Amino acid sequence: MVVNSGNANCATGDIGLMNAYRMTEFVAARLKLENELVLCSSTGIIGRQLPIEKIQKGVPEIELSQENGNAFSEAIMTTDTRPKRIALEFEIEGRTVRLGGVTKGAGMIFPNMATMLCYLTTDAALELKWMQTELHAAVSDSFNMVAMDGDMSTNDTCILLANGLAGNTPINEQHPEAGTLREALRCVTQYLAREMARDGEGATKLMTVHVRGARNKADAVKAARAVTVSPLWQCALAGGDPNWGRIVAALGASGCELDPNGYDIFLGEVQVAKQGMAAQYNQDDARQAMAGSEVTISVDLHLGEGMATAWGCDLTHGYIDENTMYTR
Amino acid sequence: MVVNSGNANCATGDIGLMNAYRMTEFVAARLKLENELVLCSSTGIIGRQLPIEKIQKGVPEIELSQENGNAFSEAIMTTDTRPKRIALEFEIEGRTVRLGGVTKGAGMIFPNMATMLCYLTTDAALELKWMQTELHAAVSDSFNMVAMDGDMSTNDTCILLANGLAGNTPINEQHPEAGTLREALRCVTQYLAREMARDGEGATKLMTVHVRGARNKADAVKAARAVTVSPLWQCALAGGDPNWGRIVAALGASGCELDPNGYDIFLGEVQVAKQGMAAQYNQDDARQAMAGSEVTISVDLHLGEGMATAWGCDLTHGYIDENTMYTR
Repeated sequence: MVVNSGNANCATGDIGLMNAYRMTEFVAARLKLENELVLCSSTGIIGRQLPIEKIQKGVPEIELSQENGNAFSEAIMTTDTRPKRIALEFEIEGRTVRLGGVTKGAGMIFPNMATMLCYLTTDAALELKWMQTELHAAVSDSFNMVAMDGDMSTNDTCILLANGLAGNTPINEQHPEAGTLREALRCVTQYLAREMARDGEGATKLMTVHVRGARNKADAVKAARAVTVSPLWQCALAGGDPNWGRIVAALGASGCELDPNGYDIFLGEVQVAKQGMAAQYNQDDARQAMAGSEVTISVDLHLGEGMATAWGCDLTHGYIDENTMYTR
Repeated sequence: MVVNSGNANCATGDIGLMNAYRMTEFVAARLKLENELVLCSSTGIIGRQLPIEKIQKGVPEIELSQENGNAFSEAIMTTDTRPKRIALEFEIEGRTVRLGGVTKGAGMIFPNMATMLCYLTTDAALELKWMQTELHAAVSDSFNMVAMDGDMSTNDTCILLANGLAGNTPINEQHPEAGTLREALRCVTQYLAREMARDGEGATKLMTVHVRGARNKADAVKAARAVTVSPLWQCALAGGDPNWGRIVAALGASGCELDPNGYDIFLGEVQVAKQGMAAQYNQDDARQAMAGSEVTISVDLHLGEGMATAWGCDLTHGYIDENTMYTR
């Protein structure tokens, strides 16, 4: 995989496409691989041609080392304030197996998939079809449940590479330990998703939104995402203002089925709305529930079994400062 | 019509509904009208019961006067920095006819209809069915094309009252001067829509987005609205940064049909993108086009005849300051 940061190579027409191919060719030549075995991603400013000569010159100079995973996680950052990475070690068929992941995030975050790049690697042997199904499922419940600003990105990528060096029987649906790898994948992607939300541009608070009781899963997803992406609620979150009416507005606008006299809302442990109206609660308790660096919002729609969790962050001056002069 | 500002009477259950009826009853009693002839709206914080005793006490004290139209336009403001009002005088059948309108806007602005209240009055005689059709069409091209923060409101209202005092033949589709009233309605609603966008919370710039060449009207509407509601583009606008790649991202995410090698984008008169790539332009010219208090973005998708215009504003610290402590 070859990744550049600072230029998205997007809205660059046929020249841009050719440059993307050239990037992979440089790396293939360096590593003596077929071109088709190299994948590439770009992230950064949209609408400018890649400085492809710089990349051509740079690729042979890259130092390759097993120790450089952390350097990679730092190199792909744009407005991220810190790298996001995780690695797990677990057992399959009594063998030690590893799954690692790095992402970049920060701005233009709205699922499908959000401006994010994610690279997952494992030494487990996986059957391709199963791997694709499981990756899709893991992404749906992690990166596609992170929202920050409602701006969908041009350059989303999530890649899972498995080299099989652990020597296990290739894992598929029938493999007795398929669940272990599934759980590891879920754990890694959800950790990275949360870290991405926590490090949103200008973010000071991580918001976790749990929706239950929705008519179905699709409704729960809509509802949870709508709350995370409401700028008015994000501002209230920044100010620690338990203005839960904005959650109501976001839920109502989400398109999920909603009984106006039927939903409950909790900020942390404090129930602020009951059956669609203000609950009896202490205002100081509600403020307290908004005060920390992690705030949980729970909504029960009391209509069915649909559940979903989404992650987001608050909206602050920092976001605006980051984005008023981005191309200067 | 009776309107209160400061409390949205939303998420207030059956008590809230009863209070809405009571508001109309107080006014009906004061004016010696049937209850059904009084309409009511509320705007403000969601999730608190109306202080209905205050309204009951206040209604008899309201001074009614033909001169108080301006006072009404000020009374309905919440975070608006100025009232929005306009009145036109024109002729139908040789008689002088008037059409006036007032709105409030400011935050939670996303069509369907946006947090807005709009009251239109005319002394023209209009046939009810024609009036409803024309009002709907006018709202579609004005208030429903204003976006600010993607937050849809709980409390949108647009009312057109016609008392027929001008004494003209009631206007319907066949009336030879129907076009005059239609044009007046279009003019009043679009003026108010633009003023609402210009006075968005924290706004320093009015943005007008013209889309043409879309596959159809629905696609043009999607595309134009997507640009106005992109927080990243709104931040760039605030900073005068001609980062048009964010327009591309918004167009791509809008769901409109788009040829990645086919669209043109102009900031004011400056063409920044041509056939999906950076055009040859002077960076200072592009900055100049972003510098004023009104910025126009024109997009040609080169796919068909669909056209639409949407209005919005920039995203600044002011928006955040307005919204972090709204309920305190």
